[in-house]
Amino acid sequence: MLARMTKPAASSSDTASSPAPVGAPQVHFRMRIRRGDTVALGPGKVTLLEAVHEHGSISAAARHLGMSYRRAWLLIDELNRSLRSPATHSEQGGASGGGCTLTPVGESIVALYREIEDEAQRHCAKQIAALTEMMQP
Amino acid sequence: MLARMTKPAASSSDTASSPAPVGAPQVHFRMRIRRGDTVALGPGKVTLLEAVHEHGSISAAARHLGMSYRRAWLLIDELNRSLRSPATHSEQGGASGGGCTLTPVGESIVALYREIEDEAQRHCAKQIAALTEMMQP
Repeated sequence: MLARMTKPAASSSDTASSPAPVGAPQVHFRMRIRRGDTVALGPGKVTLLEAVHEHGSISAAARHLGMSYRRAWLLIDELNRSLRSPATHSEQGGASGGGCTLTPVGESIVALYREIEDEAQRHCAKQIAALTEMMQP
Repeated sequence: MLARMTKPAASSSDTASSPAPVGAPQVHFRMRIRRGDTVALGPGKVTLLEAVHEHGSISAAARHLGMSYRRAWLLIDELNRSLRSPATHSEQGGASGGGCTLTPVGESIVALYREIEDEAQRHCAKQIAALTEMMQP
């Protein structure tokens, strides 16, 4: 069933040439809002906001996501700088930073982003089904 | 307008702390179909299929996308292995591979994928507008 191709000489040991992985196809919809080279909002920042909301601080959210505090802080800082009004409110705390909560803007961002993903998948269900039916079972 | 935060000591020279980039926010919708750890279909493979269709061979498509022939070949091979019926048809050729065309399956994949992106963006226009209105102008 494979198309005939001119196979590169060195590729025989490559993992991409092993049989296709088994398991049902999973469809992921991701939206990113870019400003120039920066992803102002995307799945990483939204997941981080959700973790901050759940765990109550940037440090706990970072720990939960297996991310450094510094990286989490920078992502949130970058997000807040791209917004008219910030998505988080932080309180000064100890060495690892104090508590952090979502502002109403932050809560709206999470809700809108997840709603967009759900709506996109719902409205495109027919085309997604047509695509996944072309995949190996 | 920024949330108060406990700033990590070493971050003052980081690019993420510079002012937000200017320019209108751009919204990108991307769908990926995963099988286990592999992205069976995503924006990279669809763009590659379009380049193959336009340029008539994997080598010309790879050159056009600034990708190695080997990488382009492996991506197409991986895609074809994940499909019931291949997306491309290649003819044996010279050292850099012969011509390559899209099969009807390949053409359907490109059309469905781009339709999904357009439909998703159209159906979520209201929520996307609400999100982008929260961004700095």
